[in-house]
Amino acid sequence: MRVALDAMGADAGIDPVVQGAAQASREHGPLEITLVGDEASIARALESEPHDASRIHIVHAPHYVRMHDKPGEALDDRPKCSILTAARLVAEQQADALVSAGNTGAVILAASRTFERLQGVRRVGLAAVYPTMQAHGPHGDPFALILDVGATLHCSADDLCAFAVMGSAYSRIISDIERPRVGLLSNGTEPTKGTPEIIEAHARLANSDAVAFAGNVEGLDIPRGTVDVIVCDGFVGNIVLKMLEGVSEVAKELARTAYGSGLRYKLGLGMLASGIRKIKDLTDWKSYGGAPIVGFDRTIIKAHGRSNARAIRNALKVAAKTVERKLADQIREGMEA
Amino acid sequence: MRVALDAMGADAGIDPVVQGAAQASREHGPLEITLVGDEASIARALESEPHDASRIHIVHAPHYVRMHDKPGEALDDRPKCSILTAARLVAEQQADALVSAGNTGAVILAASRTFERLQGVRRVGLAAVYPTMQAHGPHGDPFALILDVGATLHCSADDLCAFAVMGSAYSRIISDIERPRVGLLSNGTEPTKGTPEIIEAHARLANSDAVAFAGNVEGLDIPRGTVDVIVCDGFVGNIVLKMLEGVSEVAKELARTAYGSGLRYKLGLGMLASGIRKIKDLTDWKSYGGAPIVGFDRTIIKAHGRSNARAIRNALKVAAKTVERKLADQIREGMEA
Repeated sequence: MRVALDAMGADAGIDPVVQGAAQASREHGPLEITLVGDEASIARALESEPHDASRIHIVHAPHYVRMHDKPGEALDDRPKCSILTAARLVAEQQADALVSAGNTGAVILAASRTFERLQGVRRVGLAAVYPTMQAHGPHGDPFALILDVGATLHCSADDLCAFAVMGSAYSRIISDIERPRVGLLSNGTEPTKGTPEIIEAHARLANSDAVAFAGNVEGLDIPRGTVDVIVCDGFVGNIVLKMLEGVSEVAKELARTAYGSGLRYKLGLGMLASGIRKIKDLTDWKSYGGAPIVGFDRTIIKAHGRSNARAIRNALKVAAKTVERKLADQIREGMEA
Repeated sequence: MRVALDAMGADAGIDPVVQGAAQASREHGPLEITLVGDEASIARALESEPHDASRIHIVHAPHYVRMHDKPGEALDDRPKCSILTAARLVAEQQADALVSAGNTGAVILAASRTFERLQGVRRVGLAAVYPTMQAHGPHGDPFALILDVGATLHCSADDLCAFAVMGSAYSRIISDIERPRVGLLSNGTEPTKGTPEIIEAHARLANSDAVAFAGNVEGLDIPRGTVDVIVCDGFVGNIVLKMLEGVSEVAKELARTAYGSGLRYKLGLGMLASGIRKIKDLTDWKSYGGAPIVGFDRTIIKAHGRSNARAIRNALKVAAKTVERKLADQIREGMEA
């Protein structure tokens, strides 16, 4: 199991990425990690981290894409940048999966220029796991999957159906759910509600065995976690995902400020702290290790730009699990059905 | 100040509606209320409620639209239903504003069939107030306005600009903000982000003095309350609004279950209760009294179907304030600019 890890372009620089790789090298069974980026910096960062040197390699890339670069221009200008170099390692089968915490647009574009799309997939999707009230699957995972969250702003009915299949395959892999329940996000549960694209996708999914289709779901169902996979277009998904981040931020702030400084309040602070911690854990994307970009013939995990070492380590684990369980094959089967 | 109040079709029947009207008749300065619906039932409900009989009238309507009726069919079949009868009272200037807690689609359709749209308004909007972290306006209101939340699923750039003007006018009235800050909900803050309709609306609003345009806002900005008015199409607004309801529901549930039953936890419960109450107050739509349907030449306030007496009373107050401060005139001025 070999992962090409883009070492560059995360918000906090290469240190957390290298630390995450070092941790993973000592932990996860058969994982080999190729760090792609500035060789000298990576080697320096590795020196201070305990790691299994037999399982960490470095491939030099002289450039990288920054968070606020325009993806198209950046990739045109810097063909040897770390994300393109890492993607080429995967395309040439020198690695089995690609992981990056860099500029999301650049990761998707680098993949588009390097990998093939799976048969029947017109547009790729960026998926995200997010915390829900209800648990999912045999292990009681406290999160569900939502896609697309920004790769494809406007989706046709075909795209929505493909996302349903791809989300279902990924949910099966990460949560061990044999037939994940998939819902289409709309403005009402009736099959006639929504945009023309949603109405058409609803009709097709309802008449197919490709996924366990639960019909339309509404905004209420997102935090409840009524289904295992929510499908929507990238515009709506982007707003939903950022809103969830904002709500989490506000809930923590409210919990902090709702309590005065009197003695009664101070007595309660210890209790509160554990409550806040529980909410924080539930909403902590660092535990989930990144989001897959689905639709290509290769495994790609996009880690959050703010990833710390633990998040990177988890992204590497998720990538390994996704390769082991053959996501692309599962998607192919679903698309045929 | 005369309000026509549709007494029928709320989730809990006529009792909370009549109770809210009775309360308002004893409280609010110059308010006269015409209850429209089944005369015998209304009279019976009024008997047990202290009210100012000189300020409550009843107009009989033999039918009404139920929550799950299809609006078009229901209005065709029952031309004398309560919502159409109440709307006619307003159209004929026997009342200054319309308030209903009934079927939202039927309220909008009844208004469309009875009122005129304001000049330049192609599609009407349903607005909602929702709780935010940041306070708004000189009175520190803990809520912001979002529209459209379901009247117009797909909006043109013209529609989005009109919603910006109408939302700004309504925010000025309810929160006393001279120049409310208006944001367009998109998948990024740059002017080039979003659907073609959003990009075009952005360019127009940026080049106009009609509203204090704050540019694009993202999902994060919804709970934060970065702007006073958020503009989006009805499909996205519906999902956002229902998601906020769901998040509020889940936050309360989480706060309840995050605490075990040990002694340390019990000590903290008093503190927690006040925190939960604060979050609950912030997310309690009953305090806000309903949402305006904007774009018609008459004032319409849609109260929540689950309204209790207090919510109805507040909806009546909001309707009176909206009429007093001449929402339609303010919108007309904004549309000209």
